Amino acid sequence: MRSIYTDLAREAVELDPRLEGVTEEEEKDGEIGISRIRVSTEQAAQRLKKREGNYITLEAPSLVMRPLELFERLSKRIAEELTRLLPNLAENATVLIAGLGNRGITSDSLGPRVVEQLFVTRHITQLMPEAFDHPLRSVCAIAPGVLGVTGVETVEIIKGIKEHVKPDIIIAIDSLAARRSVRIGTTVQIADTGISPGSGVGNMRAGIDSETLGVKVVAIGIPLVVYAATVAQDTIELIADETGLHNDEEKLKELAEKVISEHMGPMIMTPKDIDCMVNDMSRIIADGINMAIHTKDYDDIRALVT
Amino acid sequence: MRSIYTDLAREAVELDPRLEGVTEEEEKDGEIGISRIRVSTEQAAQRLKKREGNYITLEAPSLVMRPLELFERLSKRIAEELTRLLPNLAENATVLIAGLGNRGITSDSLGPRVVEQLFVTRHITQLMPEAFDHPLRSVCAIAPGVLGVTGVETVEIIKGIKEHVKPDIIIAIDSLAARRSVRIGTTVQIADTGISPGSGVGNMRAGIDSETLGVKVVAIGIPLVVYAATVAQDTIELIADETGLHNDEEKLKELAEKVISEHMGPMIMTPKDIDCMVNDMSRIIADGINMAIHTKDYDDIRALVT
Amino acid sequence: MRSIYTDLAREAVELDPRLEGVTEEEEKDGEIGISRIRVSTEQAAQRLKKREGNYITLEAPSLVMRPLELFERLSKRIAEELTRLLPNLAENATVLIAGLGNRGITSDSLGPRVVEQLFVTRHITQLMPEAFDHPLRSVCAIAPGVLGVTGVETVEIIKGIKEHVKPDIIIAIDSLAARRSVRIGTTVQIADTGISPGSGVGNMRAGIDSETLGVKVVAIGIPLVVYAATVAQDTIELIADETGLHNDEEKLKELAEKVISEHMGPMIMTPKDIDCMVNDMSRIIADGINMAIHTKDYDDIRALVT
Amino acid sequence: MRSIYTDLAREAVELDPRLEGVTEEEEKDGEIGISRIRVSTEQAAQRLKKREGNYITLEAPSLVMRPLELFERLSKRIAEELTRLLPNLAENATVLIAGLGNRGITSDSLGPRVVEQLFVTRHITQLMPEAFDHPLRSVCAIAPGVLGVTGVETVEIIKGIKEHVKPDIIIAIDSLAARRSVRIGTTVQIADTGISPGSGVGNMRAGIDSETLGVKVVAIGIPLVVYAATVAQDTIELIADETGLHNDEEKLKELAEKVISEHMGPMIMTPKDIDCMVNDMSRIIADGINMAIHTKDYDDIRALVT
Repeated sequence: MRSIYTDLAREAVELDPRLEGVTEEEEKDGEIGISRIRVSTEQAAQRLKKREGNYITLEAPSLVMRPLELFERLSKRIAEELTRLLPNLAENATVLIAGLGNRGITSDSLGPRVVEQLFVTRHITQLMPEAFDHPLRSVCAIAPGVLGVTGVETVEIIKGIKEHVKPDIIIAIDSLAARRSVRIGTTVQIADTGISPGSGVGNMRAGIDSETLGVKVVAIGIPLVVYAATVAQDTIELIADETGLHNDEEKLKELAEKVISEHMGPMIMTPKDIDCMVNDMSRIIADGINMAIHTKDYDDIRALVT
Repeated sequence: MRSIYTDLAREAVELDPRLEGVTEEEEKDGEIGISRIRVSTEQAAQRLKKREGNYITLEAPSLVMRPLELFERLSKRIAEELTRLLPNLAENATVLIAGLGNRGITSDSLGPRVVEQLFVTRHITQLMPEAFDHPLRSVCAIAPGVLGVTGVETVEIIKGIKEHVKPDIIIAIDSLAARRSVRIGTTVQIADTGISPGSGVGNMRAGIDSETLGVKVVAIGIPLVVYAATVAQDTIELIADETGLHNDEEKLKELAEKVISEHMGPMIMTPKDIDCMVNDMSRIIADGINMAIHTKDYDDIRALVT
Repeated sequence: MRSIYTDLAREAVELDPRLEGVTEEEEKDGEIGISRIRVSTEQAAQRLKKREGNYITLEAPSLVMRPLELFERLSKRIAEELTRLLPNLAENATVLIAGLGNRGITSDSLGPRVVEQLFVTRHITQLMPEAFDHPLRSVCAIAPGVLGVTGVETVEIIKGIKEHVKPDIIIAIDSLAARRSVRIGTTVQIADTGISPGSGVGNMRAGIDSETLGVKVVAIGIPLVVYAATVAQDTIELIADETGLHNDEEKLKELAEKVISEHMGPMIMTPKDIDCMVNDMSRIIADGINMAIHTKDYDDIRALVT
Repeated sequence: MRSIYTDLAREAVELDPRLEGVTEEEEKDGEIGISRIRVSTEQAAQRLKKREGNYITLEAPSLVMRPLELFERLSKRIAEELTRLLPNLAENATVLIAGLGNRGITSDSLGPRVVEQLFVTRHITQLMPEAFDHPLRSVCAIAPGVLGVTGVETVEIIKGIKEHVKPDIIIAIDSLAARRSVRIGTTVQIADTGISPGSGVGNMRAGIDSETLGVKVVAIGIPLVVYAATVAQDTIELIADETGLHNDEEKLKELAEKVISEHMGPMIMTPKDIDCMVNDMSRIIADGINMAIHTKDYDDIRALVT
């Protein structure tokens, strides 16, 4: 009966803790917990509904207090993890960054907002390559919108740009859905697997990954919602555990459907101050990406791109 | 054990259907259902946690389809109901409209957004009273902000303005919380009771009503969230009904607390497209108020106030 | 010495009134003045810096009063003109709409804002072609961003999408610059020529037209700024006329440069309420396009796309 | 004939350099130029249209490059200057901050945006005075809106709040108009005189100062526009100087009126990226005020107010 939805590999593993083909290592960087999950078999991938590859999860529950130093610390950690995932990125590589999601829906706007804060340099490296005395990475960035707003599959828009730009790597940013509300706005998932069909808060049917795009895709996401249906399922299972109702699967299913249809429809759960949270988190991710890709002095680039 | 929270008198009555001191009449205006509840005794008011007075509830579930004619129909209905509630409003009356809530939190921004769309005329009636050949109502409007952002109690800000402006009537607009998600963005509550302490999505401790302000206060609200804690309570009671757990109140309480603390924290449930919904609904209310107060030709006034 | 910049063919013709190869017809539709300019020779095109083709200019100075009926009237007029420009558009044609400009710069945000308000249907016609009992036009829409933000030439992003979508027609929306401030927010230009290199408030170097894209491009634009440098040039010429300084071209040039560098830098002139104006005008254009393309009942489509 | 408008005392003095009753001192803090003007006679005040008192002007032309360290440096400088202006502010003083202007008009939105970023503490100091082991200043903040939107004079709204809150000092933030475009977004004016009638981008007729409010008012402003009429006047005077037309005052006046009515109407000149500039500058001011008032550790307070 399990139909609890999560975009986080770490939560999928929590629900299925002793699965073969999955390894997880944990470490600590001050207030930031780091988990490194590797899904290494096709069976594990199918069971978890998370494709084979590496998932790095950064968790910092104290982010809800909005401490400025932790913002900075987290940006740096994101930069370090990205750098580790891209060990051979050339000094003059081209990087295409895609901010997925719908700018007009706060809980789905992380990707487009990150894109607005990136230091984009491709037009400079093309038009005035002599502007710098050292090689500069060529960054371009796009917020392709969502199918319901554009009428075009997101992957097709990215594919068109990719064919023109010929990037060495694509980084895709997306809003995620978690199972537990405590992870909203406090967790960052970085994966070398791209983005799977059907995941994300928006609806995409084709994967945004190396298979469809022919180039490595690193995905960075932050959970910003819990689907209301997930809460209902989860609540009912919890109660089943407590009451011994567990054997009566038919009844449980019926109860879940009743709760969902009466209370939840297509609802999402978010913190009340989601607007402020998306604002903070998009800045943290943009800073992390800017640091990872432009290892040279910020302000030099900033003066040029402004 | 009941602790299900709702700002809607209609939902409070649904939970307590045969209460003495409460009458309810229903009618139909096309797709809009209209309920008129009267709470007429102090006991009923305490039991429902809704003070004595009249509550008009307009429900139009098909609003979720965003049909333009229904938007217009609903604006007109709001105008008609307001006009009925204010039978003796003089042709040259002064009306103060307060848009409560936090502009920076989408689900709490209804009030401030309505205010931005009102036809404000007080400065014209004061500076160029001869601009019209008939008496014009003097409208002023304020979005006082919320305590957490201003550091000042909302009611005190309104009181200061009221003392200067000396309005004949105050209309307060606020975002509400409902019990059932189906009512989000599809229901309008108009009450002649003002706004009670502790209600609304924001937190206000003093009432915004004739008692504190010395002038009649009409409140207009639209539910935009369901508190996650309400969902949990409600789900657990539903399951209790189904499973016969009902007698074991201690256990139920424990379950509810577990669910809320694990899944919900201070979360709210909203539709995914809350941004769009607040936009539409604020326009509908502003149009309704503009029509009710400025019975004369729109475009004449519009040309002056722009 | 002429270096007064305008995106409006009508203003270019005003500056060069008796040019051969240019015809202009005027008519009136209530408060809306309509001018139809045809540039029919290469020489005229070079002289005017407006390529060969048809330019329809709708002017409604009373728009500054924000009268609602005129908004509606103008939307209908835009729909009629678009329909005339696209006489053979099949009932099941595919239309790609590109909203050019920078969403984050108010005076350049017309295109992206129009796109947000379009009825996009391509995903419905593809996934559930049976949803309608008559052929439905397939509309898709994109806001490609500007070079300085994406690092990718706008035309290349559109080209990539066009190759996937294979539209019968492309409609491009853009913010324009005018010579006279009275035209800001009161004028609509519709052209069957596409968008020329270097025009628009944003900077694009490659044209967005049938030559680069291989499909007819209709451009719709509204002037939202006057470049400050245009004002300076224009002022100095006016004074030269009045004072007889005209013969002293060197001195005039020097004066203009002094004024521009001291006062104007890269400044634009806009009305103070540009935010409100862009809002109104984007809605008017979106309504016009929606009407022209979806000749069938609005609300039917709206219910599907929401 | 002089009718060049500026809100900056420094620009008024530039136009009238050797006026009696005015002293000016200049110093340098890295890239920030600091001017301290003192207007000490009634005659000088009338001539400059700037009331008696102290005007500190911080100028940092390289702000247009958006260098992050300069942002920080400028915030600190603002904090230092505020601290100097308020030498006797008690450790537990109450401070009321008023963000003037219209949130919906980008070039007039500085005040309301600063207010959104302040650390407001009055509700904490009132409700849980024991939250800190040392005295905490009590900050409250309001964005009262503008007369055209609220229908109520700004000063009356502030007066109402002041009477309830009883602040020791009021700080008013406002968008200013400059004479020279180079000062837009690069200059901060801090004055101990309050805000005069008729100044500011918005229109206020009553002063917001110690006379009307009975408590000291410090004003902080940043020029974000040049009025188009100022540009025209200035251009024509410049040309008059060059051409010897100066004696013919009638003719000059006529020319100015012609230019203004043909080209400029009620236009403003701003940089194209005014949206981004207001964003940056509001943060710089808010940081400066937060530092000046809350001399204690930021993050402690931040954790409480979030």
